[in-house]
Amino acid sequence: MNLLKVLKRVSMLMALLIMLACNETKSLKKVSVDGETKVSHPSLIITAQGVEDIRNNLGSIPIFDKTLEETKAIVDAEIEKGIDVPVPKDYSGGYTHEQHKKNYVNMQKAGVLYQILNDEKYAKYVKDMLFAYKNLYPTLPVHPQPRSYARGKLFWQCLNDSNWLVYTSQAYDCIYNYLSKEERDDLEITLFKPFADFISIENPQFFNRVHNHSTWGSVAVGMIALVMEDDSLLNRALYGIKGLDMDPSMKDNDGGFINKDGKAGFYANLEEPFSPDGYYTEGPYYQRYASYPFLIFAQALQNKKPDLGVFKFKDSVLLKSVNALLNLSDADGDFFLLNDSQKGMSYYNSALVSAVDIAYQFGGKNPELLSIAKKQDQVTLDDAGLSVALGIKNDLEKPFVKRSVQLTDGPNGDQGAVGILRKNPIEVVFKYTAHGLSHGHFDKLSFALFDNGDEVVQDYGLARYVNIEQKGGGNYLKENKTWAKQTIAHNTLVQNQTSHFQGKYSIGSKYHSNQYIFNVSNNNVQVASAKESNAYPGTNMHRTMVLIQDENYTNPIVLDILRVNSSTQNQYDLPFYYLGQLMQTNFEYNKLEVPSVLGKSDGYQHLYKEATAKSSGDNMQLNWLHNNKFYTYTAVTNAADEIILARIGANDPEYNLRNEPSLIIRKKGVKDALFVSSIESHGTYNPVTELAIDAYSNIDKIEVAYNSVDYTAVRIIMKSKEEKLFVICNNDNQENKTHSITLNGTTYSWKGVFTLI
Amino acid sequence: MNLLKVLKRVSMLMALLIMLACNETKSLKKVSVDGETKVSHPSLIITAQGVEDIRNNLGSIPIFDKTLEETKAIVDAEIEKGIDVPVPKDYSGGYTHEQHKKNYVNMQKAGVLYQILNDEKYAKYVKDMLFAYKNLYPTLPVHPQPRSYARGKLFWQCLNDSNWLVYTSQAYDCIYNYLSKEERDDLEITLFKPFADFISIENPQFFNRVHNHSTWGSVAVGMIALVMEDDSLLNRALYGIKGLDMDPSMKDNDGGFINKDGKAGFYANLEEPFSPDGYYTEGPYYQRYASYPFLIFAQALQNKKPDLGVFKFKDSVLLKSVNALLNLSDADGDFFLLNDSQKGMSYYNSALVSAVDIAYQFGGKNPELLSIAKKQDQVTLDDAGLSVALGIKNDLEKPFVKRSVQLTDGPNGDQGAVGILRKNPIEVVFKYTAHGLSHGHFDKLSFALFDNGDEVVQDYGLARYVNIEQKGGGNYLKENKTWAKQTIAHNTLVQNQTSHFQGKYSIGSKYHSNQYIFNVSNNNVQVASAKESNAYPGTNMHRTMVLIQDENYTNPIVLDILRVNSSTQNQYDLPFYYLGQLMQTNFEYNKLEVPSVLGKSDGYQHLYKEATAKSSGDNMQLNWLHNNKFYTYTAVTNAADEIILARIGANDPEYNLRNEPSLIIRKKGVKDALFVSSIESHGTYNPVTELAIDAYSNIDKIEVAYNSVDYTAVRIIMKSKEEKLFVICNNDNQENKTHSITLNGTTYSWKGVFTLI
Repeated sequence: MNLLKVLKRVSMLMALLIMLACNETKSLKKVSVDGETKVSHPSLIITAQGVEDIRNNLGSIPIFDKTLEETKAIVDAEIEKGIDVPVPKDYSGGYTHEQHKKNYVNMQKAGVLYQILNDEKYAKYVKDMLFAYKNLYPTLPVHPQPRSYARGKLFWQCLNDSNWLVYTSQAYDCIYNYLSKEERDDLEITLFKPFADFISIENPQFFNRVHNHSTWGSVAVGMIALVMEDDSLLNRALYGIKGLDMDPSMKDNDGGFINKDGKAGFYANLEEPFSPDGYYTEGPYYQRYASYPFLIFAQALQNKKPDLGVFKFKDSVLLKSVNALLNLSDADGDFFLLNDSQKGMSYYNSALVSAVDIAYQFGGKNPELLSIAKKQDQVTLDDAGLSVALGIKNDLEKPFVKRSVQLTDGPNGDQGAVGILRKNPIEVVFKYTAHGLSHGHFDKLSFALFDNGDEVVQDYGLARYVNIEQKGGGNYLKENKTWAKQTIAHNTLVQNQTSHFQGKYSIGSKYHSNQYIFNVSNNNVQVASAKESNAYPGTNMHRTMVLIQDENYTNPIVLDILRVNSSTQNQYDLPFYYLGQLMQTNFEYNKLEVPSVLGKSDGYQHLYKEATAKSSGDNMQLNWLHNNKFYTYTAVTNAADEIILARIGANDPEYNLRNEPSLIIRKKGVKDALFVSSIESHGTYNPVTELAIDAYSNIDKIEVAYNSVDYTAVRIIMKSKEEKLFVICNNDNQENKTHSITLNGTTYSWKGVFTLI
Repeated sequence: MNLLKVLKRVSMLMALLIMLACNETKSLKKVSVDGETKVSHPSLIITAQGVEDIRNNLGSIPIFDKTLEETKAIVDAEIEKGIDVPVPKDYSGGYTHEQHKKNYVNMQKAGVLYQILNDEKYAKYVKDMLFAYKNLYPTLPVHPQPRSYARGKLFWQCLNDSNWLVYTSQAYDCIYNYLSKEERDDLEITLFKPFADFISIENPQFFNRVHNHSTWGSVAVGMIALVMEDDSLLNRALYGIKGLDMDPSMKDNDGGFINKDGKAGFYANLEEPFSPDGYYTEGPYYQRYASYPFLIFAQALQNKKPDLGVFKFKDSVLLKSVNALLNLSDADGDFFLLNDSQKGMSYYNSALVSAVDIAYQFGGKNPELLSIAKKQDQVTLDDAGLSVALGIKNDLEKPFVKRSVQLTDGPNGDQGAVGILRKNPIEVVFKYTAHGLSHGHFDKLSFALFDNGDEVVQDYGLARYVNIEQKGGGNYLKENKTWAKQTIAHNTLVQNQTSHFQGKYSIGSKYHSNQYIFNVSNNNVQVASAKESNAYPGTNMHRTMVLIQDENYTNPIVLDILRVNSSTQNQYDLPFYYLGQLMQTNFEYNKLEVPSVLGKSDGYQHLYKEATAKSSGDNMQLNWLHNNKFYTYTAVTNAADEIILARIGANDPEYNLRNEPSLIIRKKGVKDALFVSSIESHGTYNPVTELAIDAYSNIDKIEVAYNSVDYTAVRIIMKSKEEKLFVICNNDNQENKTHSITLNGTTYSWKGVFTLI
């Protein structure tokens, strides 16, 4: 035996040991096909061993059985309708777009049904459809709709073509052995290889970058590579197209850079956008979208190439990402709105069904995930779904408890964070992240507030009706840029009616806010505090959100302290996007005869000014009703402050915007400013009993008791006369230092960055 | 034995026979108290026999046991807090108002708990509170808040004082035997008698009329009369104050006449506002409010004076009224909005729990009512509640099926009607009633549309936040008169920007619309048609609503045909209050830079004009999204028609109105007009899957195929090219006559008032 042979033996043994060590990986069955030993199919997502196990458990695993039943009903109905592979024509929402989308979803389902039910009609359906695509695809030019920077062939953008390939690869894997070698060769040579090349080599501006688009691209190429066992294609998927010379200033349709630093491929896409905490820099809405390809491909890689140990990559970032994403949802499971996000997206999305099942299967079978799976009321029809179904069947479930948490942003976790403060029923989402790539909004230090799953102080989200064709083809509307991304559309500070970073992605994407303190060790005084000094050069902002629970009241109070220091005199606007019907204010306002438009640019052109008021110099209060709950916003104001009651909807020629209200506190011609306010959810209304309970604020007054470079102290005086004093160090976030201040002759001392007395 | 004695014997025997014949009436137990034979207590609502039966069944009647448990928890907590009988000070929503309200509710509950649980702590609680009231009441002047035409003592209006007495009488009945004769005399002389006199003799403008206020007044007096066995007081309750000379032109706060025709007392209040179908002329929101006193008193009368046969009065109108009221609710149980009504009121209101249980007990134990009771998930803690609980326990329940139904208005059923067309999931509520007393709106031939319990084409309802003190003390807001009652606030025709009957109650209350045809015998072509000729003298309106179900589509189409003929040239506005977000129109509109105000009076001053369009002369379509469903409004228009996109909210200095959208079709300078339109609920959107299904209208075109004095024919051409022709006779509503028209050489013949070909 020569040295080479010894080395080969050793490395094979090692690979075997690694495989054995990874106890979640089913052994790959070897079968003899066409006289040669080959890895069996399916082996990508559902495995041959998984099929055996599933068949053995069918009928006794309720959530799996139910999903199977539903899936069968859907696919049977589709088979009944017959195969429809139309010539591509439409944008999203249009007929051909939706049909091709349906096709890949149904092929994937049919493939799985073939394996589980062992009924050839499903294999035949997939085969017939694949051959219909094989016949169509080579005849296709680039898609006729011109809007994308990377037009696909079946769809108007390569992104959707990639979706198609990710699903179809799974279907192909499922019927691989059903097809003859000739049939497989025909499909691979005529359809799959050219398809993979088109979305990669022929569209490097789509494929060779770090972005959710290219994640789909890499995974599409990687999935089909794994089925075809084409290692060269797999390398392209994992590491990008090598030796490509791309213009670093090139941008996509959203204004994002295509590829500024030359990174590409699945690993780069995994490395870059995820922080060590598993936060995806674009925000949860896009994380949800990207999580499917990330996790489905990781699952396939783990099954086919276990030695790559993909789930261990970057300290198990993929598994952490599922946990992070679930934590970025409100009490109803709806995702918080950070950057471009459509309201109503939740962990009930099928991508999250996959994510939860995969994370359960490959992440140590965390029993808390079972409670989410149970709410989802469906599982993936594969090995992971079987594990979850068995876990639920065996009552292993524990509640998934969402706690206050800070999720860092940036590949190394040093580009700011999202801070989530929770105290039932209130959730405060405080954003001090990096920009969030091309889907980022210009809203440093913005926040939103949820009450038992209802958004009460809102983030507008995106200006788009996803897949609703009558609204701009279901794509981003121009108001997304002119309104939704602008600073004034968010609950944060606007200086001189100009958005952060001048609303320029090229500037904003260079910076991030910095976390100052996140301390939730005392459940009754939870603090998240962060600073931003680049949004407006020469101006420093420091915002602190505090969740204070008083035992005398049911709900916690939110205290919001925003300090601004600038080298120049400015106008500062702080908008507050309450949702609901104004009940009462403690200030007199003048409603205009007809609304006027608030400004000319930076989103101001989309706001109507409905009423104005001059501050009395005392607290201003706004009391409102939303979803039968009473809320009050109380803010410290100066006599010079202006209060504007505004409404979204100006310069909206096509009714693309929602006409929702806002209150803006405006300070003019000042260098430094201190905005202090509180938000309470204090009462309820019942339209059936017509009882209004605790309709008024519990707060008598909030006041700035002290404010210096070093400390800010805010006193909250309740109507019960009880007082609270919150003090924070402004420039020293060491947890163990002792501080003191003297107010009216009384000295208060404490250890740490803040105190509540 | 002399003749007198014989007659007495005979009449006693007859009374006994009547009592025996009325098998629902429990025999009243006679016991010896203070040496004299007396009817036992309780005997009003819960009876002594009922108490026995309840005690025998406790623990085995889940819905009753659960209600008892909940009631006990509430009352125990209140007893813990101690008794609080404050000096009256506030309007509704304010502290003293809400406390007195809580007190009477809790006394009633505690009385019942004493009987069922036989625990003296509850009797003592009631007794202590009654004596606190006994001590307070004689010291009270009229209530300090001056807004009511009939100020109470405990509350700002006699209405609420009456509420108090209705509940408190029940509590008193329950602890009657717990008190000594001296205690009872003290309470009756110092509290109950003066209380009853105050709300009747001392406030005849409140008591002696036909109105929901006086219903409460009569019942309050009647209930305490029954407990005290004071027949003179009972006569006052049943027949009003006799020999009173009232000014017939006197009006209440709502602008309603106090007593135009001298009718008064419980029977008059029962006779007048209820139609033979059980429709209450003020509408379901106030019927719900009035139904509690009507039914609770009827129950008490039936128990105490069975020979009056109150449930048989006017062909059992009280029992019919419960059925009518349940039919006036949408799929979720929320009442339709007719006249002054607050959204969200439903058959889950406690008044309806009583109504349903009483109707079950005294109306032949209709098993359909059990399904409503089951949804309500509670029962009354008395004999009726026990019957319902036993019915549910014994699985007697049948679904309460709401069908298309016409409910006539007016004491004799000849003052128009409400027509409800139903075809799952659509409900059309078409109003061609009388005015509805002081709570009526000026909206002849108006309609609203519900889709699976969601209001989609809305009636605005009232401009009031009931019991929310910060909004005008929780009372009617001035916008109720200037906006909510005006014609332009409704989905019906406005001539020359003036409300029906000039918006004058004195005129409107004289007239009613007339039903023309209501035919729902064919479930797939349901027709309600009505005429109005008094709203605008010289102008005749004829509106026909048709619900058409085509087997090729999931949901029915609503066809709306409104013919107007006038002796003068006018401007006609037809508003359409769609709820939701505009998706697309098939016409180009010009959005104004800032909205302008649409008019100066009659509600127009509250509408912003946001955009205008000139009709192309073809169909106009508006496609919108509401609660994730897609809708389209399609209307035939002429080239001269103007289209206005409007929004509610102008001249609303205190944010009392909701800023919701409207589309108005305007025809200028014409005598006759024909408005034809269709409404479709055709598609869905899912924000989790982001799938838009059937987002577009299924209708290619609707056109007027024929229009003469005698016939109107409308053709609906579907996108599938399928055509439908609906023809209606305009001036002949005989069901058996044969008609024919010839269109383009083809003659169509049919029998009856309409046909769909």
